[in-house]
Amino acid sequence: MSKSPLQLRIRKRRRTPPGAAPGSINLAEDAIKPKLSIISFGPNDLFELPVQSLADILQRIKQNPGLTHWIEIRGFGDKVLLEEICSEFDIHRMEMEDVINTYQRPKLEEHVGHLFLVTRLLTHLSEGGMRNDQLSLFLSQNIVITMQENYEDFFLPVRTRIRTGKGSLRSSGADYLTYALLDSIVDTYFPILEAIGDQLDQLEDELFDKPTRASLQKIQLAKRELIIFRRTIFAERDKINDLLRTNTVYISDQTKLYLRDTYDHIIQVMDLVESYKEITASLMDIYLSSVSNRMNQIMKVLAVISTIFIPLTFIVGVYGMNFSDKDPISGKELPLNMPELYSPYGYAGVWIFMIALVIVQLLVFWRKGWLEKA
Amino acid sequence: MSKSPLQLRIRKRRRTPPGAAPGSINLAEDAIKPKLSIISFGPNDLFELPVQSLADILQRIKQNPGLTHWIEIRGFGDKVLLEEICSEFDIHRMEMEDVINTYQRPKLEEHVGHLFLVTRLLTHLSEGGMRNDQLSLFLSQNIVITMQENYEDFFLPVRTRIRTGKGSLRSSGADYLTYALLDSIVDTYFPILEAIGDQLDQLEDELFDKPTRASLQKIQLAKRELIIFRRTIFAERDKINDLLRTNTVYISDQTKLYLRDTYDHIIQVMDLVESYKEITASLMDIYLSSVSNRMNQIMKVLAVISTIFIPLTFIVGVYGMNFSDKDPISGKELPLNMPELYSPYGYAGVWIFMIALVIVQLLVFWRKGWLEKA
Amino acid sequence: MSKSPLQLRIRKRRRTPPGAAPGSINLAEDAIKPKLSIISFGPNDLFELPVQSLADILQRIKQNPGLTHWIEIRGFGDKVLLEEICSEFDIHRMEMEDVINTYQRPKLEEHVGHLFLVTRLLTHLSEGGMRNDQLSLFLSQNIVITMQENYEDFFLPVRTRIRTGKGSLRSSGADYLTYALLDSIVDTYFPILEAIGDQLDQLEDELFDKPTRASLQKIQLAKRELIIFRRTIFAERDKINDLLRTNTVYISDQTKLYLRDTYDHIIQVMDLVESYKEITASLMDIYLSSVSNRMNQIMKVLAVISTIFIPLTFIVGVYGMNFSDKDPISGKELPLNMPELYSPYGYAGVWIFMIALVIVQLLVFWRKGWLEKA
Amino acid sequence: MSKSPLQLRIRKRRRTPPGAAPGSINLAEDAIKPKLSIISFGPNDLFELPVQSLADILQRIKQNPGLTHWIEIRGFGDKVLLEEICSEFDIHRMEMEDVINTYQRPKLEEHVGHLFLVTRLLTHLSEGGMRNDQLSLFLSQNIVITMQENYEDFFLPVRTRIRTGKGSLRSSGADYLTYALLDSIVDTYFPILEAIGDQLDQLEDELFDKPTRASLQKIQLAKRELIIFRRTIFAERDKINDLLRTNTVYISDQTKLYLRDTYDHIIQVMDLVESYKEITASLMDIYLSSVSNRMNQIMKVLAVISTIFIPLTFIVGVYGMNFSDKDPISGKELPLNMPELYSPYGYAGVWIFMIALVIVQLLVFWRKGWLEKA
Amino acid sequence: MSKSPLQLRIRKRRRTPPGAAPGSINLAEDAIKPKLSIISFGPNDLFELPVQSLADILQRIKQNPGLTHWIEIRGFGDKVLLEEICSEFDIHRMEMEDVINTYQRPKLEEHVGHLFLVTRLLTHLSEGGMRNDQLSLFLSQNIVITMQENYEDFFLPVRTRIRTGKGSLRSSGADYLTYALLDSIVDTYFPILEAIGDQLDQLEDELFDKPTRASLQKIQLAKRELIIFRRTIFAERDKINDLLRTNTVYISDQTKLYLRDTYDHIIQVMDLVESYKEITASLMDIYLSSVSNRMNQIMKVLAVISTIFIPLTFIVGVYGMNFSDKDPISGKELPLNMPELYSPYGYAGVWIFMIALVIVQLLVFWRKGWLEKA
Repeated sequence: MSKSPLQLRIRKRRRTPPGAAPGSINLAEDAIKPKLSIISFGPNDLFELPVQSLADILQRIKQNPGLTHWIEIRGFGDKVLLEEICSEFDIHRMEMEDVINTYQRPKLEEHVGHLFLVTRLLTHLSEGGMRNDQLSLFLSQNIVITMQENYEDFFLPVRTRIRTGKGSLRSSGADYLTYALLDSIVDTYFPILEAIGDQLDQLEDELFDKPTRASLQKIQLAKRELIIFRRTIFAERDKINDLLRTNTVYISDQTKLYLRDTYDHIIQVMDLVESYKEITASLMDIYLSSVSNRMNQIMKVLAVISTIFIPLTFIVGVYGMNFSDKDPISGKELPLNMPELYSPYGYAGVWIFMIALVIVQLLVFWRKGWLEKA
Repeated sequence: MSKSPLQLRIRKRRRTPPGAAPGSINLAEDAIKPKLSIISFGPNDLFELPVQSLADILQRIKQNPGLTHWIEIRGFGDKVLLEEICSEFDIHRMEMEDVINTYQRPKLEEHVGHLFLVTRLLTHLSEGGMRNDQLSLFLSQNIVITMQENYEDFFLPVRTRIRTGKGSLRSSGADYLTYALLDSIVDTYFPILEAIGDQLDQLEDELFDKPTRASLQKIQLAKRELIIFRRTIFAERDKINDLLRTNTVYISDQTKLYLRDTYDHIIQVMDLVESYKEITASLMDIYLSSVSNRMNQIMKVLAVISTIFIPLTFIVGVYGMNFSDKDPISGKELPLNMPELYSPYGYAGVWIFMIALVIVQLLVFWRKGWLEKA
Repeated sequence: MSKSPLQLRIRKRRRTPPGAAPGSINLAEDAIKPKLSIISFGPNDLFELPVQSLADILQRIKQNPGLTHWIEIRGFGDKVLLEEICSEFDIHRMEMEDVINTYQRPKLEEHVGHLFLVTRLLTHLSEGGMRNDQLSLFLSQNIVITMQENYEDFFLPVRTRIRTGKGSLRSSGADYLTYALLDSIVDTYFPILEAIGDQLDQLEDELFDKPTRASLQKIQLAKRELIIFRRTIFAERDKINDLLRTNTVYISDQTKLYLRDTYDHIIQVMDLVESYKEITASLMDIYLSSVSNRMNQIMKVLAVISTIFIPLTFIVGVYGMNFSDKDPISGKELPLNMPELYSPYGYAGVWIFMIALVIVQLLVFWRKGWLEKA
Repeated sequence: MSKSPLQLRIRKRRRTPPGAAPGSINLAEDAIKPKLSIISFGPNDLFELPVQSLADILQRIKQNPGLTHWIEIRGFGDKVLLEEICSEFDIHRMEMEDVINTYQRPKLEEHVGHLFLVTRLLTHLSEGGMRNDQLSLFLSQNIVITMQENYEDFFLPVRTRIRTGKGSLRSSGADYLTYALLDSIVDTYFPILEAIGDQLDQLEDELFDKPTRASLQKIQLAKRELIIFRRTIFAERDKINDLLRTNTVYISDQTKLYLRDTYDHIIQVMDLVESYKEITASLMDIYLSSVSNRMNQIMKVLAVISTIFIPLTFIVGVYGMNFSDKDPISGKELPLNMPELYSPYGYAGVWIFMIALVIVQLLVFWRKGWLEKA
Repeated sequence: MSKSPLQLRIRKRRRTPPGAAPGSINLAEDAIKPKLSIISFGPNDLFELPVQSLADILQRIKQNPGLTHWIEIRGFGDKVLLEEICSEFDIHRMEMEDVINTYQRPKLEEHVGHLFLVTRLLTHLSEGGMRNDQLSLFLSQNIVITMQENYEDFFLPVRTRIRTGKGSLRSSGADYLTYALLDSIVDTYFPILEAIGDQLDQLEDELFDKPTRASLQKIQLAKRELIIFRRTIFAERDKINDLLRTNTVYISDQTKLYLRDTYDHIIQVMDLVESYKEITASLMDIYLSSVSNRMNQIMKVLAVISTIFIPLTFIVGVYGMNFSDKDPISGKELPLNMPELYSPYGYAGVWIFMIALVIVQLLVFWRKGWLEKA
């Protein structure tokens, strides 16, 4: 990585070992301690008190059966907790395995008692490349559980809307909350695309201006980012589509209307991604033709200089020959041997001839367009 | 942009911020003051009086329940007005959000009480590139509402047909008016394609004639215009197809017959766009092979000049050597050292040999075809 | 066009102006005067008398209700006639608009009382490029109307079969006549493909033999012809397929059996077109590699000549140096300064050394394969 | 063909002339005299007596109604015979037209009383290229008729299995015989693919070893063979698939089980063909990069030789200048003019300097990797 | 192979000869002696005793009708045994033919009494390339038979889970065992992909660092590995999909839930394979542009050296001319002939001029960027 800092490696993935029993909960060694939180809300109520344990959460739910509860679990470093969650919320061990192995494709699974959704959280890194986190979400009648591997807060705008009671979030149920979360994730795809777009614009300027080896690496980087992005978006679209088509009781027709809007957004993102892919391919073409063009430039300079000076060098070589004007033995004059050398205007004549030759050559080059800049 | 004026950037888009509540009406800062107008017509009636406010419009509709009303709103700079429109015509806030965020894909949404259509208005700019506006259209029983961001009049021909009573526009209903509007938009795609086609033709001449770096930029520009155009046309086709297949009461079978014609036109446009895409790819091939060909030309000149003069320079170099015909100490003759120099015909002989050599070389080059122009 | 006579422009098309009322019959300015003809036939009857007007035709049909009538209209230069045809044969104005605007894709439309078919008549021009005419055909119970823009006779073989009573044409109905016309058009696609195939074969020979700039243009020409051809064939296939699947009363199952054969032919044509497209792509590859190869040839000659003579020129340059064998002031011998010049075998020795060097170089080049032709 | 013996032309095809009546039996001029044969077999019987005429065959069938009959007709040079076959076995004239025009795609047609199958017999020619014959097969209750244009025997293994009673061929009916024939044809596709695979392997070795212009032709040849092969295989697969899905009484479910196996084989062939196509594309890439690499080699040699000797030639040129150490008129010493020439170690010094320079240059080249082989 | 050790040939395949009777059991000559084993288990029982013959196995099954039996056969070198298996377990001879001809695509066949599955076992070889074995599996009510050509143990993790009673393997039936086997195979695809990914990463470093001819071979190798891998994965996915959709009694809904998880894994693998294919294509682009870049480097050095020294050589050539300052006969002064040679500062002046020229040239090159490294 030190050599080519721009390279984007498709990430290696922690996995349960081949042949392991399905549903094994194998925690990563560096899994961090879970942080729990719960927001309970209804049209008129909002509880957002700190919780220490799953027991607190269960009690809160029990006490407020009429409210919508959003349980957040960040960090997976407690196997016992994860197993308790499984048993308390009737989550299958294979679902929990997918939660922990954070390389799942976006998907929707319908289980008895809840829906299980996997969503990818993409973040464009300022140093290039993309961060790719997993959000696992369980949706039942009035409970939404979201689980993520790290402490980052991806949902501040949604939380703010709950707190301020803005929009219809407070008065709608768990399915609308799920929609709000998914929609806020899809919304983050736009700024990423804008960043990629800006990058491609810069790259194009650079390529027309002064393409370097680093430009090639940047093109490759952009290409890969788009490969990953596209892969994610396609699966994300399929998931939203599944949500729209499913007959589950957990999503109301009203919420599906909103989800259709999210679906439209994803289609817009896909359109842009496809366009950017085509542009990236064009950039590669521009790069390659730039390399050829620079070669042409170099060759042109070489050809002009060579074509001008090689004949001149020949001419001066002619008059550097040592043909003798006298037979060294007999001392006889050899008048055919290089009489030019003894003409009073020989030297001047050669110069005039050479200058004329150069002028003619320059005229020819100028007409061929070899003296132009590009 | 100043550097490479031909570049076509995929436009950045104003959006509601990520995580915002759905259905927020966030006006752009530079949104212009709305202009309202209404044309009410029937087979025998035509009212096109100026209106100042939504109230005027509502009153007009009330007074003429039997006529078809076409309400036009140009400019979105009045949030209150937009909200009144929502409530008066039973338009959902999420629809109005799509109207304002003018980057929607062409689409058809069926709502209770009306259809909602988004259409793209493409304009080919004389300086290259394309302008891409959004037309939002609401169709109910006898009312068509069109909304656009700016004051431009895209529908003069339709308006003229209403005014002159030409064709069946006056005697048909709101659905036929919708068809007429959509069809007149699709009709504008043909001149754009012609402009692009002319551009490609010119470009091809240029490429076979004298390709430059600017040609490459023009090819890229054409490619991107076609990417955008194609993307729009595909969605437009899907929308028209949805219109044809829908079972809504708002579109009569008679009008669907006309829409089928519009559908055929879009398919023709798509055919042309695909052909132009293939031609653009060919142009890139021609450009690249032109670059190679010019290189070949340059190399050929260099090779001919070098191959002729390098051996000659060697020959004159030979007779520029200073091998002595006498031992400087003993003064003994060294008859093997360059006797040619002392031959009476040495110099002439060298010239004859060199000229013969050049003639032979030229013959060889001529047979190899290196002396030909292309 | 004068510059690059081989170029094939995708044709510009006459159109009704954007926003015009649908179903407008706008004749081209150069539309030619219509020629009318009618052939009426049954198993035992054949009338092929000259007709002057539509009235003659209508009378003929009235008098022979049991026969099959083939009405041909060539040339569209009479608006009144076209409108009469519309009203007499119950043809919608939008159909007639498609007849006149002769750039329709092949299609089948089912109308009450008749079928409307559009077919493309392709003709390969000997000077390269393709002519692309439109045949419009209306099929009702016992009447076939064909309309074309010019006077050319594309259907002589069919007419001959009717006249001679060959095959089952005379004893079958209007649907079989329609089949016979369509089939004879599809049959003309084969010789066009053969011509294109011959062209590609010649081009390939040329490319392996002596590729020039014109070869590139010819490849591009072939590519475009195939693009147009392919586009047409695809739509033609869809049309035949629609004919096979439709439940119309105007086409008997017996005739569908024959149409299936036409369908097979179109599939064969498509197969060939696809193969030719792949071959055209290969030709481009061959052209590009030829350009590279010629460059290699040129470079090889340059490299061989330079590599041989540059060292030799250096050597003779060495002995052209003027290092003095005596100190000019003291007159002292300087025995280290170029003693070779005063050796009796110096000159001969240099020649022997240089010849040996050249032989060694030639051996090296020969082993590297640089002296081979290709 | 003499110029480029490797070229594979897509074969021109004999056809009924455009516009001819369908079902015309137009024999090729060089059609050969038909050879007739019949094998009649049951679990316990086997008759394989010579037959002279269709009458013999019909009699044999009459006498053995309980047996399965395989009638073979090789050669089409007898129009009367073909017409008799049509009438005796209830074969439509359009089927017979397809039999004679031996360029049909593989297909299955269901007719009243029999199935009609067209199959392609591909043979890889040792001199490169492929032979492509047509087998037409009619399957009715207990009769299989196969027709081919020439005398070649493609079905010896099947015939042997009938004769020796090996496998279940003798005890099964006409449908199983059909299966056996089709399966034996599909089996021949594997050795062809192996031959093509071997060819590609050799080609790859050649390309990495010593690519020539002929390699390019061989790649193109392989590419076209694969185009043809692929086209055939796809249609063949569709045909077998049609056989599997059809509800005809002529094929038992038991035989369909076997046909499914043939289908699997075709899918395997298609897999291989696709892989080979990708490999052929890679070979083209390798070829092109080889051409570039050879160019690099040549340029490297030229650059090394030039870079070493051009400066040296300059240096010796310096000391070939004739600046005088004395004013020729005044005889005054000019001590600044080339004192090196009169230094006792001048010549030796120049050599030492030049050798040092060469060593430094070689070091630089060696570090740049220019002295390496590849 | 010795020449290009990296090449990956698509393996040639042993087959039954063309035209052979279907269902022939033709053993390979080098088929190894079969090893038999059986594991019988239930929730509380586990028998894993050695068996010598099929009889032992049959007896064991008879004695334990309530247990799940996993019979493994490794090595096919005993025709009699294979035929006994066919008759004892009601396996069709055509299935056994597929077992022996170990080049089948992954597939699922439903037979009366059992399911027949073919799966590919891929192994990435450390020396490059991939090993591709076949696992054939028969699943009936409580019996799973797996057959493979060699002795290798691919299923140790599953066997361990049976022995240790870990997971639900012991308490579930034969269908769950089948799932466990399939899942463990799919699990092995991930490390292979990781190995390929590592390879591609290394290759990319190499290409940006110092691309050689061997890099090209490595890219081609990776490409082919991915072609094979992809082909296998696609068929594998189809097979799992068939398993999920089938209505067989041999697979419970519970097991299908687990198989869905396996299906998800395959989709993940396919995603990665597609990404790797795109990356491999990029690597080829990088390679080609590297070759061009190196050419540019070489040309730049050549051009700089030539452009500097060719004019200098001309200059020194000028002063090597022998124009005489005196008429040799008359002895008259020729003052125009090269007076520079007799100027006291002539030599120094030439040097100063030449050095100045070089400095100017270097400045120009530096501004053009020719002196930069890349």
